[in-house]
Amino acid sequence: MEKGNILYAQSGGPTAVINASAAAVIATARRQRARFGKVLVARNGILGALREDLLDASGLAPAQVEALRRTPAAAFGSCRFKLGKIEEARGHYERLFAVFRAHGIRSFLYNGGNDSADTSNKVSQAGQALGYPVQCIGIPKTIDNDLAVTDNCPGFGSVAKYTALSILEASLDVRSMCESSTKVFVLEVMGRHAGWIAASAGLAGRGPDDPPHVILFPEVPFDEAKFLARVKETVGRLGWCSVVVSEGLRGPDGRLLAETGAKDAFGHAQLGGVGPRVAGLVTAKLGYKHHWAVSDYLQRSARHVASKTDAEQAWAVGKAAVEYAARGMTAVIPVIRRVSDAPYRWRVEPAELSKVANDEKKMPRDYIREDGYGITEECRRYLEPLIRGEDYPPYGKDGLPAYARLRLRAVPRKLPSCSIADR
Amino acid sequence: MEKGNILYAQSGGPTAVINASAAAVIATARRQRARFGKVLVARNGILGALREDLLDASGLAPAQVEALRRTPAAAFGSCRFKLGKIEEARGHYERLFAVFRAHGIRSFLYNGGNDSADTSNKVSQAGQALGYPVQCIGIPKTIDNDLAVTDNCPGFGSVAKYTALSILEASLDVRSMCESSTKVFVLEVMGRHAGWIAASAGLAGRGPDDPPHVILFPEVPFDEAKFLARVKETVGRLGWCSVVVSEGLRGPDGRLLAETGAKDAFGHAQLGGVGPRVAGLVTAKLGYKHHWAVSDYLQRSARHVASKTDAEQAWAVGKAAVEYAARGMTAVIPVIRRVSDAPYRWRVEPAELSKVANDEKKMPRDYIREDGYGITEECRRYLEPLIRGEDYPPYGKDGLPAYARLRLRAVPRKLPSCSIADR
Repeated sequence: MEKGNILYAQSGGPTAVINASAAAVIATARRQRARFGKVLVARNGILGALREDLLDASGLAPAQVEALRRTPAAAFGSCRFKLGKIEEARGHYERLFAVFRAHGIRSFLYNGGNDSADTSNKVSQAGQALGYPVQCIGIPKTIDNDLAVTDNCPGFGSVAKYTALSILEASLDVRSMCESSTKVFVLEVMGRHAGWIAASAGLAGRGPDDPPHVILFPEVPFDEAKFLARVKETVGRLGWCSVVVSEGLRGPDGRLLAETGAKDAFGHAQLGGVGPRVAGLVTAKLGYKHHWAVSDYLQRSARHVASKTDAEQAWAVGKAAVEYAARGMTAVIPVIRRVSDAPYRWRVEPAELSKVANDEKKMPRDYIREDGYGITEECRRYLEPLIRGEDYPPYGKDGLPAYARLRLRAVPRKLPSCSIADR
Repeated sequence: MEKGNILYAQSGGPTAVINASAAAVIATARRQRARFGKVLVARNGILGALREDLLDASGLAPAQVEALRRTPAAAFGSCRFKLGKIEEARGHYERLFAVFRAHGIRSFLYNGGNDSADTSNKVSQAGQALGYPVQCIGIPKTIDNDLAVTDNCPGFGSVAKYTALSILEASLDVRSMCESSTKVFVLEVMGRHAGWIAASAGLAGRGPDDPPHVILFPEVPFDEAKFLARVKETVGRLGWCSVVVSEGLRGPDGRLLAETGAKDAFGHAQLGGVGPRVAGLVTAKLGYKHHWAVSDYLQRSARHVASKTDAEQAWAVGKAAVEYAARGMTAVIPVIRRVSDAPYRWRVEPAELSKVANDEKKMPRDYIREDGYGITEECRRYLEPLIRGEDYPPYGKDGLPAYARLRLRAVPRKLPSCSIADR
């Protein structure tokens, strides 16, 4: 059998550890030299595959692979492009297989969330329909932790660690000066559809007086009066109050709070997030001085404080993807199976792409405390192992992480150019 | 000579390493047992001294002192209270010395910025005037790096490291998806009066295409048209643009940009910071999708990624303060003298409190690049050593830093109570 090349690509929002999966793909394929030819990489996800915008990662030195493993964000670029159904987007598939054929690509490894699993699955089916057999393997990744089947998603553990750590540290700060300065601090976190990231902030506290004192989940409609009463009670008791709010918080009418807010001087609504809004409400209604923070991209790129569990799992799913390809599997995705909570044990096993593609994992209702403002012990048992362990990047003499600056060779084009834009 | 007790207190905004100074005071005083009695601590700075709200740190176990060293924020509480001139606030000084006398306090070590140096100096003078001789030693601390005489301020190096690191990581994220998603990212940083923190972001980049592409300093009046042209040019060339803005950015009219912004749904102006404002401007005028982050307290409490240089200097000034007291000095403050840039060498030496109290260090104009949007090599040479080295806190099995939770014994009160509020 002729050795096929691997094509790897990254899709959707970056994470702190997605490049650990990339590094694992490159390192594992190298150890399977008898089975695979080159490892090619598409720039900006499937878009690069369609555009024949490919890089050759085969020549990457081991030190560069190791640096890549500890570098945040999508080193090869990412996209949100979704392939349509084969009957509607036949041209795209024909182009894709023309590129695959021209470059001897027999395995397509796509690293992303639901949409990427869906894309990988469609490419697998289209390959059979159009007579270009290609092994399509998904590699799970998302900070949102919303993929079905897998116990958790690589990328989530690190944002969870960053979030718990950040509210812990900032809360110590607020407590220091609460008598004479800020009494209420609000941290806004990501997670538009589910409260996984907001919940992870709950790991910072164990006792009833520990921060965060209030977590506002997207799953719990915002009750302004009840929230204000809780803040007031907390400030009365402790002198300060630490709040975490999910960007996905919705009012009783189901509308995102972030969308019901202020307009800037130009009349644009995109100014404030829900964090500043909730903080402003506290001052307006209770008169407490507030401060707020919005970490935004900082939270999902914080490789400097990545969870070791997360980094190991990101590596493990990248490695498994290559092994599945080596075994001739297609339309599968490695997922994480939790074997036990204490001690925390997990293993990687294959799941059908279709099952991951068309489902979404919500946070169980019993992970949220009955009062709606914190996490339960069950939730803590689930979350805590995911943030355990540190896996620091190496630092340079300049005091900053020595993140990879790869210079990969572009693969010479063999086909007519094809312009296609992200949607 | 009877052994006097030491009173240590913390003042002003917390930092990631102020507790390293506290730990050094406790550890050093312990080694000088022949000279000093107890180490007492005032809660919430000078307010606690006036209120006779004191804790006894003498019994702190070495492991707790070590934990304290690596814990962010002001472990004993802080305040912004300023003592008036002796002729105007004689009652305060009399009360203070009554407390000092009642508790055998002969050395007062005050850890803070300009105002705290001023307070220490006034207490020293008042002690002479009112016949209660007390050694007053300042201990420098501020994230703002604006103290005179000292080459740099403990607390600044860590916020500088956090800032450079954060814009480096977030920029990798933005670059990953710039084709199809966010093109302009804005990070707002602290520093209302001087651009030291904003400047530290410049350490993240070396080449002309490296982020941050634009730094907006409080020292450079905001020129909207020029700024937008620079952003447009950068996005045109690279596909994305990374911006750091100081909260102290001012328009050509001298007004803070943060104060000319939006009002929230309740008519309050405290909603958006300058970060969201600048980001909104980019979208309104250039049409680029933006994201923004405001780290707020996260930046000054980020002990998890403290600069080793900074942590060492915070320890060194705390240690020196006790040594100066042991030598019978008063109205002095240990400052950091830079001996050489490369290799970076520094030492601690005493300076007069009055010189530190009544001056403010501005950023030299030649630290800002001629175009106004970046730092010069001279600035880099100054800043870089300050963020060098890592000094990680220990982590618990829960995946979070094991920050100190001190339970100090309250010192029994001996005087009538005195209520005094912060201003």
